[in-house]
Amino acid sequence: MSEAITSANTVHLNGSGQTNGSIVNGTKQFIVEDAARKTSQSANTVNGVAANKVSANGVSSTSKRCLWFEEELEEDLRWVFGVSKILHTGVSDFQDIQLVESGPFGKVLILDGKLQSAEADEFVYHESIVHPAMLYHQEPTTVFIMGGGEGSTAREALRHKSVKKVVMCDIDKEVVDFCREHLSANSEAFSNRRLELVIDDALAELERREDKFDIIVGDLADPVDGGPCYKLYTQSFYENILKPRLSPGGILVTQGGPAGILTHKEVYTSIYNTLRQVFKYVVPYAAHVPSYADSWGWVMASDHPFPTSSPEETDSRISKRLVGDLRFLDGQTMAAIFALNKHVRNSLAQETHVYTEETARFIHGHGTAQRPH
Amino acid sequence: MSEAITSANTVHLNGSGQTNGSIVNGTKQFIVEDAARKTSQSANTVNGVAANKVSANGVSSTSKRCLWFEEELEEDLRWVFGVSKILHTGVSDFQDIQLVESGPFGKVLILDGKLQSAEADEFVYHESIVHPAMLYHQEPTTVFIMGGGEGSTAREALRHKSVKKVVMCDIDKEVVDFCREHLSANSEAFSNRRLELVIDDALAELERREDKFDIIVGDLADPVDGGPCYKLYTQSFYENILKPRLSPGGILVTQGGPAGILTHKEVYTSIYNTLRQVFKYVVPYAAHVPSYADSWGWVMASDHPFPTSSPEETDSRISKRLVGDLRFLDGQTMAAIFALNKHVRNSLAQETHVYTEETARFIHGHGTAQRPH
Amino acid sequence: MSEAITSANTVHLNGSGQTNGSIVNGTKQFIVEDAARKTSQSANTVNGVAANKVSANGVSSTSKRCLWFEEELEEDLRWVFGVSKILHTGVSDFQDIQLVESGPFGKVLILDGKLQSAEADEFVYHESIVHPAMLYHQEPTTVFIMGGGEGSTAREALRHKSVKKVVMCDIDKEVVDFCREHLSANSEAFSNRRLELVIDDALAELERREDKFDIIVGDLADPVDGGPCYKLYTQSFYENILKPRLSPGGILVTQGGPAGILTHKEVYTSIYNTLRQVFKYVVPYAAHVPSYADSWGWVMASDHPFPTSSPEETDSRISKRLVGDLRFLDGQTMAAIFALNKHVRNSLAQETHVYTEETARFIHGHGTAQRPH
Amino acid sequence: MSEAITSANTVHLNGSGQTNGSIVNGTKQFIVEDAARKTSQSANTVNGVAANKVSANGVSSTSKRCLWFEEELEEDLRWVFGVSKILHTGVSDFQDIQLVESGPFGKVLILDGKLQSAEADEFVYHESIVHPAMLYHQEPTTVFIMGGGEGSTAREALRHKSVKKVVMCDIDKEVVDFCREHLSANSEAFSNRRLELVIDDALAELERREDKFDIIVGDLADPVDGGPCYKLYTQSFYENILKPRLSPGGILVTQGGPAGILTHKEVYTSIYNTLRQVFKYVVPYAAHVPSYADSWGWVMASDHPFPTSSPEETDSRISKRLVGDLRFLDGQTMAAIFALNKHVRNSLAQETHVYTEETARFIHGHGTAQRPH
Repeated sequence: MSEAITSANTVHLNGSGQTNGSIVNGTKQFIVEDAARKTSQSANTVNGVAANKVSANGVSSTSKRCLWFEEELEEDLRWVFGVSKILHTGVSDFQDIQLVESGPFGKVLILDGKLQSAEADEFVYHESIVHPAMLYHQEPTTVFIMGGGEGSTAREALRHKSVKKVVMCDIDKEVVDFCREHLSANSEAFSNRRLELVIDDALAELERREDKFDIIVGDLADPVDGGPCYKLYTQSFYENILKPRLSPGGILVTQGGPAGILTHKEVYTSIYNTLRQVFKYVVPYAAHVPSYADSWGWVMASDHPFPTSSPEETDSRISKRLVGDLRFLDGQTMAAIFALNKHVRNSLAQETHVYTEETARFIHGHGTAQRPH
Repeated sequence: MSEAITSANTVHLNGSGQTNGSIVNGTKQFIVEDAARKTSQSANTVNGVAANKVSANGVSSTSKRCLWFEEELEEDLRWVFGVSKILHTGVSDFQDIQLVESGPFGKVLILDGKLQSAEADEFVYHESIVHPAMLYHQEPTTVFIMGGGEGSTAREALRHKSVKKVVMCDIDKEVVDFCREHLSANSEAFSNRRLELVIDDALAELERREDKFDIIVGDLADPVDGGPCYKLYTQSFYENILKPRLSPGGILVTQGGPAGILTHKEVYTSIYNTLRQVFKYVVPYAAHVPSYADSWGWVMASDHPFPTSSPEETDSRISKRLVGDLRFLDGQTMAAIFALNKHVRNSLAQETHVYTEETARFIHGHGTAQRPH
Repeated sequence: MSEAITSANTVHLNGSGQTNGSIVNGTKQFIVEDAARKTSQSANTVNGVAANKVSANGVSSTSKRCLWFEEELEEDLRWVFGVSKILHTGVSDFQDIQLVESGPFGKVLILDGKLQSAEADEFVYHESIVHPAMLYHQEPTTVFIMGGGEGSTAREALRHKSVKKVVMCDIDKEVVDFCREHLSANSEAFSNRRLELVIDDALAELERREDKFDIIVGDLADPVDGGPCYKLYTQSFYENILKPRLSPGGILVTQGGPAGILTHKEVYTSIYNTLRQVFKYVVPYAAHVPSYADSWGWVMASDHPFPTSSPEETDSRISKRLVGDLRFLDGQTMAAIFALNKHVRNSLAQETHVYTEETARFIHGHGTAQRPH
Repeated sequence: MSEAITSANTVHLNGSGQTNGSIVNGTKQFIVEDAARKTSQSANTVNGVAANKVSANGVSSTSKRCLWFEEELEEDLRWVFGVSKILHTGVSDFQDIQLVESGPFGKVLILDGKLQSAEADEFVYHESIVHPAMLYHQEPTTVFIMGGGEGSTAREALRHKSVKKVVMCDIDKEVVDFCREHLSANSEAFSNRRLELVIDDALAELERREDKFDIIVGDLADPVDGGPCYKLYTQSFYENILKPRLSPGGILVTQGGPAGILTHKEVYTSIYNTLRQVFKYVVPYAAHVPSYADSWGWVMASDHPFPTSSPEETDSRISKRLVGDLRFLDGQTMAAIFALNKHVRNSLAQETHVYTEETARFIHGHGTAQRPH
């Protein structure tokens, strides 16, 4: 099955999904059924022994015994997990793309050898990057996502009934196409009429556009040396390009890199301090994302104050404004992720570094791929 | 020779060669000087190039290039970090003991191949297990620590001016002796006159004693299959042995195992639910401990309500009651670690499993060694 | 279903889509063509940047950075290499089957998580197990292969012009089908009219048959605990079942497990000594197989003496009798692999263990999968 | 040994430090005895449980579970083994030095993170580099070793009764001192009156000297990029500096790097071809060295023919000329290691590359440390 989709994926990567669809009798749906059928077939041919073996030791035992994904979090720190299958692979102009079946984290999206998102806990990252800002806003109708090619950030934004338009601007067409095809959790979002997909450099796109947005989300790669993303973390970008595109009362929220006790000074504190040079109100928050092997940070910024609201008010706002339930966030969780520990708060308060193209700070690469915006 | 150099390193690492020398007997002092001499000698012979090499690439490059500590968090999840030196090793009746110099976490204490405590972030775990319960208590004077042989938990408890006696009961004499000798951060605590050290099974010791305690701390290994510790997590132990040893208004706090989005159901929820069968008021909390590659859980329990207090009140209580500053905890941090996310809160609320010797639940072993209590 | 695609990739890999397509059923054939077309398309559509990336850093860099195959050679010895693609996967009644693209060894066949055969050096193993015995024989016309489902052993045997029939008896139909379909190097052999393929237990098959063979080859898994193969290494099997099936002047040759300086006593010496109880003339030999991370052993046995022959005679015999050239073996190489070093020769001479079902000796599993015969 | 002392200290945390101290007096010999005694002591003091644990699961289980040595043989090929102890560590002007206790290979000497020599199989490498050349020589009396700081090559050379002087010239004093102190197998050699130890660059030393040698051994690091060693593999060095130091009938033998089926073209073939430009008679040979995870190559060269001799003649020569028995080499083994396989012989015959400072060829580093000569 994985290979079947691989061929489909090959087809798709060179943009002839339709042709493929019509050849293999039309719809992805068919491929799925086809796969299911074949699977059950082999299930039939496999006798009792094998059946036991497959369920008991079969694939997972193999993955345990032989195939491992290894991410180098730091020069001397590795995060290693068993892989049972490579579900799909692709290559873009910018990076290698893999969707693998992992032991501990379910399906895992890997860009250029870095864990980007895991089925088991991506809801923590994506609920956290999207909903706080949108819930603080009085009535968000327009959202601009820098990056976010995976589609999960758009998916969460589109859950807000007030939203009329979500512009998702990612530079990597192949990643977007790959995720649209293979991440079933986001397929609805990708086909949502309110989603406007732009394949371009977010910086150039924001410079070009004249419309304004209630919410701008920076779902970007960390500023890694050699990666172009760091330009999207600089004071001049925030000041001259992004801020003009925020409507009155508009809020920027950006991912802020690792925010753990041992890693928050890599870039998180200086992203926070840089935003403080540009916006009146800046709010850092963080949560532990297991598949990243670290706590992760985000920063909200606006020139309008963030009204304090009780957990109860937040809960009712969530139930009024959103379609469906959240798994990670609610009023109390928001109180929790906004209350950083003393150690990190002190570092944030003492940070003096401001992000400019000249003073860019880089990190070793944590869980987020070196993906062009 | 390497032993000599090892002690030399110890001296160097805790910067108190003389003190250290005077603490230990003449022999070791001799070895220390001997090592110092050898060290300086080689220092003389090392030329500029080498000096650069050592500082720049020397040890760390070696550790990066060749020696790795690998902990299997799950059957198919590994936490791997570079090791530059094994500082000390020992063997007890119960486990192997190692103190190694790691790349990302500084000195790391390893028991039976499992990371027990890391210099870089042990303060997160130990401030969290000790101070909340003691701050909620009106005036804690007596503390009983089940396990805690490392000494860090005693160290934190002894910072409370109100404390007159801390009983630390660990079954493993060698671990206690090893840590007393090699963990310089805890040497003061080990020599504190208010510390009463007992080498025994905590269960037997609590059964035997007739005095009561304001605070009982369960600084134990996780309930791992084969490990004896699980008996210290059962309803009958809490009910019949531990609770009678709590003075009026007394509080039990125990470590609760991994509490991450993906791991909190292993034992954390059932430890919580078990305590709810025994105590009127039970409070779970958690924090991310980087070197454990997970969030960690603790549970406080008492028959007396935990008075609500504002972050400000907590902060003033900390400054009034404690000697020295805390690095991780303050009023706001406490609010944060007590506010669990929706996902984990739901699991805690829905848990029905109660810990008994018959229904013990085990985990794969997360960061905490399989250490007898 | 993975079958389906796999054929698709096979087309690409061995460029024999039509033949392959005609072998498989309509659906598959269809997908085969589809995939073939798509592949060329993607080649067209990938632009310069991407093309360079793929060839230069693309796949190999990814494999280097994130996906690793790990085989545990011993409890504390690992052989680890980068994997860029899982080309095909399957599951049989007996084991998991994977064909992966590796960094250092090209395509690698993995059975139950163990490296079975590598594109880069399988010729060393297969030339060594087949040709010495056949070259020592006056005129081998019939060959029986126990195991050998991969097809490479049959491929080598079929290169001998004198051979009229090669019976290959492997118990695992899925492995045979998988290799027939995906190992292009063996596709000719699989379709050779002189090959008689039997899916059965080699022991039962030899018991049942009444014809005799000039050469019997034991291309089996090592005797691993739990694996059934060890029965095919016992004195009683050799004596009562195998020997009666050898024609006058017939020769048995079996793989003998690891034969390195540190590993030859695991099973090699006792396989050798067991054969000495049954045959008049027994000849052990060995060669280093890089992808096994060890030297490998084989043993020839017969009741007829092995005539000494000069390297020159051997060379001329090879050129007279074989179709095509050998890559590893020639007269001088044979002299080399038969001349074992003093250390291993002493162990062979001193071995007293005889293989019986009661005294079976097992190894940790070296490079050869635990494959039923 | 350091572990013995360490355990001793651990065991004696409750007191016998005195004993320990009073015994230690800095003489190596003495510390050895001391360590030995301590070991038995600790065995006594540790109770049954622990004793069993230590012998049965203790150290080895720990090593298996947590500490690993990893050598990167190729960019995507790793050789990984369990380490139970770091016995000694040091730093020289040129490299980091470690002696560790490994699971599969016993004590292992590591220079700059690369396995240099393993207790379990170093005899294969060192018997092979020394004895063939010396046995081919009519009566070797003087030997010059380029590098060889470990001492094992000198040890083997000194076993020849005819030898009056062995000059060992290694540039790294610390490595020599480290090995002299800690490699007990070589302590006799280091104190042998016939050994002349020179700490210098072998090239400079040979240039300076005016005496000639019957045998010159190149026990050097592989020519690795950035390593100075490659100069000792160049045509001009052989022609202008080394050859003039060979006495009539003198023989040069040098290690030649990896010589496996997949690795022999890295440097082995061009070292061979370079020597052919300088000497009339050049003989390549190779053997599998398990701890290197590869076959290893050596090359002998001379302007005098190497007389053919039967295995029997070689055996009698060994027994006449050498003190003690060889473990790996004898007449038949020599025939074996000199008979290279067809694949490697073809590469040697076809090699056209000649080693000069301008055309130096480098390898990724195989088992031999980047050690200056």
